[in-house]
Amino acid sequence: DSSLKVFTLSSNPDLAAEIAANIGVELGKSSVTKFSDGEIQINIEESIRGCDVYVVQSTCEPGNQHIMELLIMIDALKRASANSINIVMPYYGYARQDRKARAREPITAKLVSDLLQTAGATRVITLDLHAPQIQGFFDIPVDQLVGVPILSSYWSKKDLNDIVVVSPDHGGVTRARQLADRLKAPIAIIDKRRPRPNVAEVMNIVGNIEGKTAILIDDIIDTAGTITLGANALIENGATEVYACCTHPVLSGPAIERIDNSVIKELVVTNSIPLQEEKQIDKITQLSVAPLISEAIIRVHERQSVSILFD
Amino acid sequence: DSSLKVFTLSSNPDLAAEIAANIGVELGKSSVTKFSDGEIQINIEESIRGCDVYVVQSTCEPGNQHIMELLIMIDALKRASANSINIVMPYYGYARQDRKARAREPITAKLVSDLLQTAGATRVITLDLHAPQIQGFFDIPVDQLVGVPILSSYWSKKDLNDIVVVSPDHGGVTRARQLADRLKAPIAIIDKRRPRPNVAEVMNIVGNIEGKTAILIDDIIDTAGTITLGANALIENGATEVYACCTHPVLSGPAIERIDNSVIKELVVTNSIPLQEEKQIDKITQLSVAPLISEAIIRVHERQSVSILFD
Ligand SMILES: Nc1ncnc2c1ncn2[C@@H]1O[C@H](COP(=O)(O)O)[C@@H](O)[C@H]1O
Ligand SMILES: Nc1ncnc2c1ncn2[C@@H]1O[C@H](COP(=O)(O)O)[C@@H](O)[C@H]1O
Repeated sequence: DSSLKVFTLSSNPDLAAEIAANIGVELGKSSVTKFSDGEIQINIEESIRGCDVYVVQSTCEPGNQHIMELLIMIDALKRASANSINIVMPYYGYARQDRKARAREPITAKLVSDLLQTAGATRVITLDLHAPQIQGFFDIPVDQLVGVPILSSYWSKKDLNDIVVVSPDHGGVTRARQLADRLKAPIAIIDKRRPRPNVAEVMNIVGNIEGKTAILIDDIIDTAGTITLGANALIENGATEVYACCTHPVLSGPAIERIDNSVIKELVVTNSIPLQEEKQIDKITQLSVAPLISEAIIRVHERQSVSILFD
Repeated sequence: DSSLKVFTLSSNPDLAAEIAANIGVELGKSSVTKFSDGEIQINIEESIRGCDVYVVQSTCEPGNQHIMELLIMIDALKRASANSINIVMPYYGYARQDRKARAREPITAKLVSDLLQTAGATRVITLDLHAPQIQGFFDIPVDQLVGVPILSSYWSKKDLNDIVVVSPDHGGVTRARQLADRLKAPIAIIDKRRPRPNVAEVMNIVGNIEGKTAILIDDIIDTAGTITLGANALIENGATEVYACCTHPVLSGPAIERIDNSVIKELVVTNSIPLQEEKQIDKITQLSVAPLISEAIIRVHERQSVSILFD
């Protein structure tokens, strides 16, 4: 039976350390540095011949850098005779360009999957892909873990009363349904429509939120426009309090300021993307996906099904 | 016959404009911007269906960014039904990791070739690859143009007397020979050796340089350590003046300061990599490769041999 090694690159070193500790292995010895001209130099400082290697890397900001690091690492592992190269990608970036919405658009979610396979990846373990269809872009196995159970355990312990789980748009209803089932709560949907072209969007709430504690849920919060405007609409329509959660805290541009100034009482996220110090505000609680991912790695390594982790 | 379009990305916009003007076409309409989280967004603003597209992009610093831009552009062109996708890459970055010199090293020069092909490139037109073997990493046609004729014309016009062309190391002798032939000059080689481990390198000059005007030539000048130390050795060994030239002015880190403070009287480079304003010092002369590349594009498009351009 070949041995298991966990390596980190630069996106999530703390998460990788936590995963290695959970599994009971030392983090693999390697370094990522830059040559004087900015080209990435990777050194793998221990033999990995015949090993099953798990490389932890989210392709969060700086995404292009993180993708190139990962591709170069995969190339090096392949040439060093790894038995398998398993990419542990808690956050799969470039996922929002997943179809040609307009003429001559790239499909970057597919491009990234092709690049990973070309470099030599043999499996991907990821969490809440922006669209489940992205799994089908790969010709190698993809285990897609789910963040809802982690978020729901947190909310369960908080003793909130009369909860309604709210999807900020139509695309997120399935996810809201999953959280609502676990919290034994009803759902509501924020239904945005533009009455006429060039007229401001109207936010209509489908479902009963009056006098209730609303929990908004999304997969990604990026600039936080959708979630903070949605929270306003909920309060205006009679919700007593608004909480929010997501799996992937991209939180770019004005996000932190918007969240801090919003009616949202608390935002709960995972560490699929680590929060830089300036993003660690009181309102944001970060939950670790390390237990979930460690369990998935052990099950993959022992050739057991990981589908039990999706529930 | 399908029509020819030239597009630029962000590395060499001026060179691309010059190439388009030489060929007599308008530069293709496209834009490269970033989403709030730093992901690249490319818009191609005109139909390219059935066209032969030439995309100008060097993978110079920031190399990872430039590579991802190029891959996303290729993906978009492919999905927009281009007839052919020709990558015009005056400087091919990541070329110095072209073999496993030590255990567990990546071969990034091969990785980049695989990535370009996976994205959908159908041909590469490039200039002075760091190692000619890199051509063999591709399964698509690669036209490798040569910078020596451009450099040699410049030196010919300068009326220097009693020239000797010097290679800064053993790897560059062939290139020095090509320049020397054109200038009807002899060659010399700087022969570095380390007499014993942990003892400083000794620079020995093979060939006669006494009382001569030396012209150093290399493919890439990066931190400029080799070239400026070499120039010192030439003066110490009796050369009267030292000039230098290279195809690819990477010029990272201490390069500009070293060159400015060195005994080198003039450094001649091409615009395969544009010089940022802070790098445009009096000592450096930049020659355009646009005429060479334009000619190559026209010949490729008209299905004529480009080998005539190698002489
Ligand atoms: N990194 C990004 N930041 C913001 N918007 C993006 C990004 N990538 C893609 N998009 C846009 O997001 C839209 C898809 O988002 P969605 O409808 O939520 O799947 C598309 O119109 C994309 O152009
Ligand atoms: N971007 C870079 N900057 C500096 N050195 C590099 C770079 N890429 C690779 N190298 C090193 O350069 C050496 C190869 O250079 P050369 O012997 O001139 O072909 C290898 O030992 C590489 O580790």
